[in-house]
Amino acid sequence: MLEDKNQERTSLAELGEFGLINHLTKHFKIHHSSTVKGIGDDAAVVNTEGNELLVTTDLLVEGIHFDLSYMPLKHLGYKAVMVNLSDVYAMNGQANQITVSLAVSNRFPLEALEELYAGIQLACNTYNVDLIGGDTTSSTKGMLISVTALGTAKKEDIVYRNGAKPTDLIVVSGDLGGAYLGLQVLEREKQVFQVNPQNQPDLDKYTYIIERQLKPEARKDIPELLKELEVKPTAMIDISDGLSSEIMHICTQSKVGCKLYEEKLPLDPQVISTCEEFDLDSTMIALSGGEDYELLFTVSLSDYDKIKGNPNLTVIGHIAEENEGMNLVTRANQEMALKAQGWNSFKGKE
Amino acid sequence: MLEDKNQERTSLAELGEFGLINHLTKHFKIHHSSTVKGIGDDAAVVNTEGNELLVTTDLLVEGIHFDLSYMPLKHLGYKAVMVNLSDVYAMNGQANQITVSLAVSNRFPLEALEELYAGIQLACNTYNVDLIGGDTTSSTKGMLISVTALGTAKKEDIVYRNGAKPTDLIVVSGDLGGAYLGLQVLEREKQVFQVNPQNQPDLDKYTYIIERQLKPEARKDIPELLKELEVKPTAMIDISDGLSSEIMHICTQSKVGCKLYEEKLPLDPQVISTCEEFDLDSTMIALSGGEDYELLFTVSLSDYDKIKGNPNLTVIGHIAEENEGMNLVTRANQEMALKAQGWNSFKGKE
Repeated sequence: MLEDKNQERTSLAELGEFGLINHLTKHFKIHHSSTVKGIGDDAAVVNTEGNELLVTTDLLVEGIHFDLSYMPLKHLGYKAVMVNLSDVYAMNGQANQITVSLAVSNRFPLEALEELYAGIQLACNTYNVDLIGGDTTSSTKGMLISVTALGTAKKEDIVYRNGAKPTDLIVVSGDLGGAYLGLQVLEREKQVFQVNPQNQPDLDKYTYIIERQLKPEARKDIPELLKELEVKPTAMIDISDGLSSEIMHICTQSKVGCKLYEEKLPLDPQVISTCEEFDLDSTMIALSGGEDYELLFTVSLSDYDKIKGNPNLTVIGHIAEENEGMNLVTRANQEMALKAQGWNSFKGKE
Repeated sequence: MLEDKNQERTSLAELGEFGLINHLTKHFKIHHSSTVKGIGDDAAVVNTEGNELLVTTDLLVEGIHFDLSYMPLKHLGYKAVMVNLSDVYAMNGQANQITVSLAVSNRFPLEALEELYAGIQLACNTYNVDLIGGDTTSSTKGMLISVTALGTAKKEDIVYRNGAKPTDLIVVSGDLGGAYLGLQVLEREKQVFQVNPQNQPDLDKYTYIIERQLKPEARKDIPELLKELEVKPTAMIDISDGLSSEIMHICTQSKVGCKLYEEKLPLDPQVISTCEEFDLDSTMIALSGGEDYELLFTVSLSDYDKIKGNPNLTVIGHIAEENEGMNLVTRANQEMALKAQGWNSFKGKE
């Protein structure tokens, strides 16, 4: 990133904190009348217009959650917003505002932060979200981004994790495992580059999975689609830590079991071919690869007709009684207990 | 902190992220019926009960904003909450909820985070605030705390920075400069300790200013007092970066000037005596020492009778026309232009 020595480098200290925030946010526009006051006072002022407020926050740390040697800063800004909006959509809500706090070491020039904010701005414009505040400070090492997202939903529309009932269908949006495999490709290319910096990687056959890793999209369309279809899920969660870990959250909080069917898991052809190339089991990757930011939800069996055949949605199993446990039914028709091999930032993959 | 080798040390990796959050937050209780759903889903759910929502966020970074060699973790947790609540009170609002995100390196055992959360919990209980979410992750170096506070206010009660008018009185709560001087004392003792670890410092004569630094209190009482007195300020801000910098924010946003009177600045006797000891000008410290977390506000001249004589409030000057500039009137009756020598984390004191 920004290794071109001829590029302009403006030191952050020159601007000071207020100058920096003003500089970085001056081109952001406000989309919502509910944003009464954005950046520029002690606190932002928001009107929830009679709806319930949804609040979620995520922290991304350089060296733990992202590697700037292959993550362009603009993509990082975009992704930091997506990760948070995804949580609002997982409540069946509409995302309206974000705050962005940033800690950066002095190794970053102003131009790097401009790139980061260009990605944040693109996310705000694409997802119709207002940047209403934040904090910007130096760090002793690396970069850290803390985003809080605010959304709204009617009280009766909110979907929690704890409402799944036996016989409910388990549904997932999009496809699974791509983001994790994209990361494996990028990590491999980084190592190749370290050995031979002249090597020009041919990444054409990985474009989809690399985009899933570097520029994920939160599923704003799914709450909208569900409304259109007149389906209210009984439970919902977003897939940040992997399908297995997320369905286990739903089951534990709903006090139920589940059966997932291996043959039903939606996989992109690039996921299948890359799994073969890396000698990885694609089912394992679909279950435990994180960062897909798809939505996982359960619906009443009586809603099946409304969702079947929808290209955005795949039925992958059903909820069972609690004493039946949480299982994957393999292609060979064997039941295997699910494991939560989600991401644990304190020790990496569990 | 926690240098006693006999103390228990539980590694964070043993618990994992979800176990850690559960462990740290299980004793927190919910104070507000407006907190519909706290920790445990994709997002928290809050009901603003017909009021406007206030949102503010601050980031505290080890080595930039705090030094764990003299800042006990419990105090740090308390202070991280105070810094944010102060911004809600500065809007003339009531603080109701917070989220706390934490990045910590593996050098911190679980017991250290328990101390930190004990301070957060004390702040929540004392200030009647609910912890409703957050994120906990590892960092490659040091500790970083990101807090977002949510509050509410009736639309007609909110006080912005931009409403000050010429002839308005400038009022400050409490006294000024203590927190900065407390930091100077702690920094000096740290250096003494490094030279002679056996030295037992006698800090009795600095108790007030050290407490101002290590355990500041946000002025929850001031919006309440103003309501009681039937005074609505025309502009308000909290003093985090120093009086001079903050009054300049009010003046700039309100497009007015001001006169502050040196002889009116409220100083605690410990501030005066410690300034003498350190050979510092107490007026300079009152103007530019940050972190007091007092409230600075302007009121209409017609409200003078309501606030005069109140032991919590001091009238320190008045608003002037914009073309008169922003000035301090010294004891010798000379006018000096104010300078914003606030804290700039990218280069320290500006």
